[in-house]
Amino acid sequence: MTERKKAAILGGGVIGGGWLARFLLNGWDVAVHDPDPQAERKIGEVLANARRALPMLYEVRLPEEGKLVFCETLAEAVADADWIQESAPERLDLKHAILADIERHAPETAIIGSSTSGFMPSQLQEGLDRRGAVLVAHPFNPVYLLPLVEVVPSGKNSPDTVERAAGMLRSIGMFPLVIGKEIDAHIADRLLEAVWREALWLVKDGVATTGEIDDAIRYGFGLRWAQMGLFETYRIAGGEAGMKHFLAQFGPALQWPWTKLMDVPELTEELVDTIAAQSDAQSGHMTIRELERLRDDNLVAKMRALKGRNAAVGVLLNAHEKAIAPRRAAQTGEPLETIARIVPVDWTDYNGHMNESRYGQVFSDAADAVLATIGAGEDYVAAGFSFFTVETSIKYLAELHAGSPIRVETVVTEGAGKKLRLSHRLLGTDGAVHATGEQLLIHVSLETRRACEPSGAVRDALEALAASHSGLRPSDPGR
Amino acid sequence: MTERKKAAILGGGVIGGGWLARFLLNGWDVAVHDPDPQAERKIGEVLANARRALPMLYEVRLPEEGKLVFCETLAEAVADADWIQESAPERLDLKHAILADIERHAPETAIIGSSTSGFMPSQLQEGLDRRGAVLVAHPFNPVYLLPLVEVVPSGKNSPDTVERAAGMLRSIGMFPLVIGKEIDAHIADRLLEAVWREALWLVKDGVATTGEIDDAIRYGFGLRWAQMGLFETYRIAGGEAGMKHFLAQFGPALQWPWTKLMDVPELTEELVDTIAAQSDAQSGHMTIRELERLRDDNLVAKMRALKGRNAAVGVLLNAHEKAIAPRRAAQTGEPLETIARIVPVDWTDYNGHMNESRYGQVFSDAADAVLATIGAGEDYVAAGFSFFTVETSIKYLAELHAGSPIRVETVVTEGAGKKLRLSHRLLGTDGAVHATGEQLLIHVSLETRRACEPSGAVRDALEALAASHSGLRPSDPGR
Repeated sequence: MTERKKAAILGGGVIGGGWLARFLLNGWDVAVHDPDPQAERKIGEVLANARRALPMLYEVRLPEEGKLVFCETLAEAVADADWIQESAPERLDLKHAILADIERHAPETAIIGSSTSGFMPSQLQEGLDRRGAVLVAHPFNPVYLLPLVEVVPSGKNSPDTVERAAGMLRSIGMFPLVIGKEIDAHIADRLLEAVWREALWLVKDGVATTGEIDDAIRYGFGLRWAQMGLFETYRIAGGEAGMKHFLAQFGPALQWPWTKLMDVPELTEELVDTIAAQSDAQSGHMTIRELERLRDDNLVAKMRALKGRNAAVGVLLNAHEKAIAPRRAAQTGEPLETIARIVPVDWTDYNGHMNESRYGQVFSDAADAVLATIGAGEDYVAAGFSFFTVETSIKYLAELHAGSPIRVETVVTEGAGKKLRLSHRLLGTDGAVHATGEQLLIHVSLETRRACEPSGAVRDALEALAASHSGLRPSDPGR
Repeated sequence: MTERKKAAILGGGVIGGGWLARFLLNGWDVAVHDPDPQAERKIGEVLANARRALPMLYEVRLPEEGKLVFCETLAEAVADADWIQESAPERLDLKHAILADIERHAPETAIIGSSTSGFMPSQLQEGLDRRGAVLVAHPFNPVYLLPLVEVVPSGKNSPDTVERAAGMLRSIGMFPLVIGKEIDAHIADRLLEAVWREALWLVKDGVATTGEIDDAIRYGFGLRWAQMGLFETYRIAGGEAGMKHFLAQFGPALQWPWTKLMDVPELTEELVDTIAAQSDAQSGHMTIRELERLRDDNLVAKMRALKGRNAAVGVLLNAHEKAIAPRRAAQTGEPLETIARIVPVDWTDYNGHMNESRYGQVFSDAADAVLATIGAGEDYVAAGFSFFTVETSIKYLAELHAGSPIRVETVVTEGAGKKLRLSHRLLGTDGAVHATGEQLLIHVSLETRRACEPSGAVRDALEALAASHSGLRPSDPGR
C-alpha cells in the first residue's frame, strides 16, 4: 500500500470544506485550520453532503476515508502536508499574510494552492521566498462533485511543479485545466461574470425575473453545456460548412447594440431588493440544505448519465474509477467479492427504494467482475468474444435505499465449455442477505452473435475457478 | 380521437427542420415550403436525427407521426394551418415579405410564429394587417430535443393569442417562456452573446484555446446549469445568509476591470483563422453528423437522468409523457399490452445491446402498468400502499438495440389476496418474442413495509382481471 498523503486546508467555508471533503473521501489525511468558531459545524455540514453524494458517482467503493484533524494553528495544520490549500476571503493583504505564514512552516516539497477566484498567481507570490511553490488552484462549487479546477502558474512555477500539482488533483478525481497565461479571474469566472452582468440588466430593466432567466438557461442552452461547450456546439450549428461559416453568420451580431454589456449595472438597494424578492419567490420554499441536496442529487444523476455514455465528464469519472478500483485476487475456495459499492440516487423508484431492475443490474455487474477475473474482460470483448446472459432468476429479500453500501459474493456453480452458471448473494452493511440471484451465461462470438467455444486461456481459467468453488454451497438459487 | 393539427414550416434549415420534426413526431401534419433545392435532403437529415433521438426521451410511444408534404408554394403550405412557423434568414426585409405573403393566404385563426433570434415582435409586425397573429417563437438547437421556446408578444397580441400559442407549444413537449417585455435578442441569446464576446477575447488574447474554454464550461458550471440556472445556483452559494449576502459579496467584482466586456473584439481574418484551426484541432476528427449524434445521445441521457429525478427538464418530460400516454382499456380475455416504447441509448452496454438488467426494468414497468389498470397506481401509492416484487425470472431469447421499438404483453396468472403473479412476453417489431419473464408481487403497506391485504376496490379489480385471463395460456414462464 502506498503511504497516505496529507492535505492542509486553510479556511473551512463552502469552498475550503468542499476541498477537505474531496481529499478526505479520496483517502487523504486532512488537517484543517480556520479561526472561525463555527468552522467545525460548517465543515461538518459540507462533509455530510459530500459523504452522501460523491460515492454515488462510482460503481466501486471509494478508498477508505483519511483521518480528519482540526488544528488550533496554521503551523500544526501544514506540517508534513503534500498539498496546502488556502481558501481565505478574497482580500490580497489577507492572502499574503497567510501565504507568508505557510511558507514559514510548510515542508519544502509541498504544493501551495490558492482558491482565489480573482487574483493572478504572480500577485499572490509577491513578497514570498518560495514563489515557485504557490499557484492558483481555483475550484467550483460543490467542490466535492464538480471536477474542474483552474490551475494557473506564473513564470516562477517550474513545469515540474505544475505537473506534480496536476497529478495530485487528478488522483482525487479532479480535472486540472492548466491555464498558460495569467489573467484576472482566470477563464470560467470571466464567462460567468459576463452572464451575470447581462442577467442583472435583464432583471433591472424588468425584462425577466430571476426565475425566468434560470428557466431560459435550464430548459435551453444549459442542457447543452454539460456535454459540449460553446465552441463545439457552435461548430455543429455551422453545419457542414464548418466553423468559419458560423463565424461569418454570427459575426455581424457583434456590431449590433444587442446588449448592455458596454456598461455595468449598479447594485442599488432597489436592485438588490428586487433580486432577493424574486429569488425568494423562486426558491424560498426550500432551505439552503434542501437546495443543496436537490442540486447534488441532480448533479449525480446527470454525471452518471454521461458516465454511462463515457462522454465529457464521464470520461474522467470512468478513468478515476479504474484508478480507485480495488485489485482483487481470487482466493481459492472462497466466493468472489464481485461488487462493493453504494446505491446511487438514480436507482430508486416511486416506492422510495432501489428498483427491482437494479438488483438485476448489480448481478449483471457481478457477472462482469467474474469475467474480468477469468480474462474475459474489456480486451476479450475488443477481440470479438463475450458471454451473453440467457437466464436470470432473482429473489428479493429486503429493501435497499440510496446511499446504502452493498456487496455481492459470487460462486461459480458451473464453468465448462460454453456454459457459465453463477450464484450471487447481495449483502447489506449488516451482512444480511438482501437478494439472491442465479444466472446462466453462454459464450458467444460478437461477430456471428452465436454461441461458440471460449479461447483456451479463458476456458482454463474458468474451469480452475469452477473447480476451486466446487466445495462451496451455492447461494440460495432463487427459485 | 381529436382532429389532427397542421403546422406550416417556412424555411427548412437546421431550425426549420427541427421545428418540422418536433411537430411531425408529436402527431401533427406538416407542410413545408423552402425554395432551396437542397431543402428536402437537409430536412431529411434533421428528421433522421430527430426520429432516432426524440422517442428515446419517453417510456411510452410517441403519437403516430403526422403526414409530411413538401409544397411548391407558400400559399399551399399555409392553407388550413393551425401553426405557421417562419424560419427564414435573419433579415428584416425578407421576414416582412414572407409575413405579408403568409397573411394573404393563412387561415384567420392560425398562429404565426417567427424563429427570429434578434428582432422584436413589433418590428416583425410593421406594415402587416393581422399584427395580432404574429409573435416571436424562438427555439434552440436541436429544436426536436431542447424544450425552450421564447414566446415574445408585442402589445398587439391579445392574451388569448399568447395563451393559445403557449398551449400548442406545450402540446408538442416544449417549454414556452413568455417574455413580457420586448427586447432585441430576447433573453437567452443575450446571455449567450455575453459569453461569446468574452470567449472571443480569451481566444484572441491567447489565454485559452476553444477546446480549453469548452472544458472550462463542461467540467464546471455547465454541469450545474442543466438543473438550476444562474440565480438559484448563486442563492445556494450565498449559504444560509441568502441572496442578499451573496450580492453583497459578489457586488464589488462588478467594479473590477475583470473583463473586456466594455469592448467588442473585431472578427479579423486572423482571429477567424485562429478559432477555426483550434476548433478543427478539438473536433475535426468527427464529421458534423457524428457530432450531432454524439450531442443528441448525450442530451438524451442527461435529460432522461433529470426525468428519473423529476427535476428541471424532467418535470416537463414527465408531464408530456402523461399527456401522450395511450389510454388503454383492458380487453377481457386478452393479454394486456403493458409496454410500447423505444429502447433508449442509455440502456445499452459494452456488448452493443440492451443490457440484461433493462429487460428486468421493462418487466418492472410492465408490472406498474398492470397496477395502474387495477387502480393501484400513483394515488394508491400516495395513500400508503403498493406491491413489492419478491421474485423474478427472465429468459433472454434475442438481442435488442438502441432505437428498437418494443412491446410487452402481460397475463395475470394469479391474482388473489396479497399475491399477484404476472407472466410477460417482450416482443420486437417483427412480433418475435425477445424475452419472457415471470414475476411474483406481494401487496404491502408502505408504512410498515410489510405484507397486508389490498383495499376492496383493488382486490376486486385484480380478481376480475385474473379471472378474465384464466383462459389464456401464460407466456413461457422463463424456467
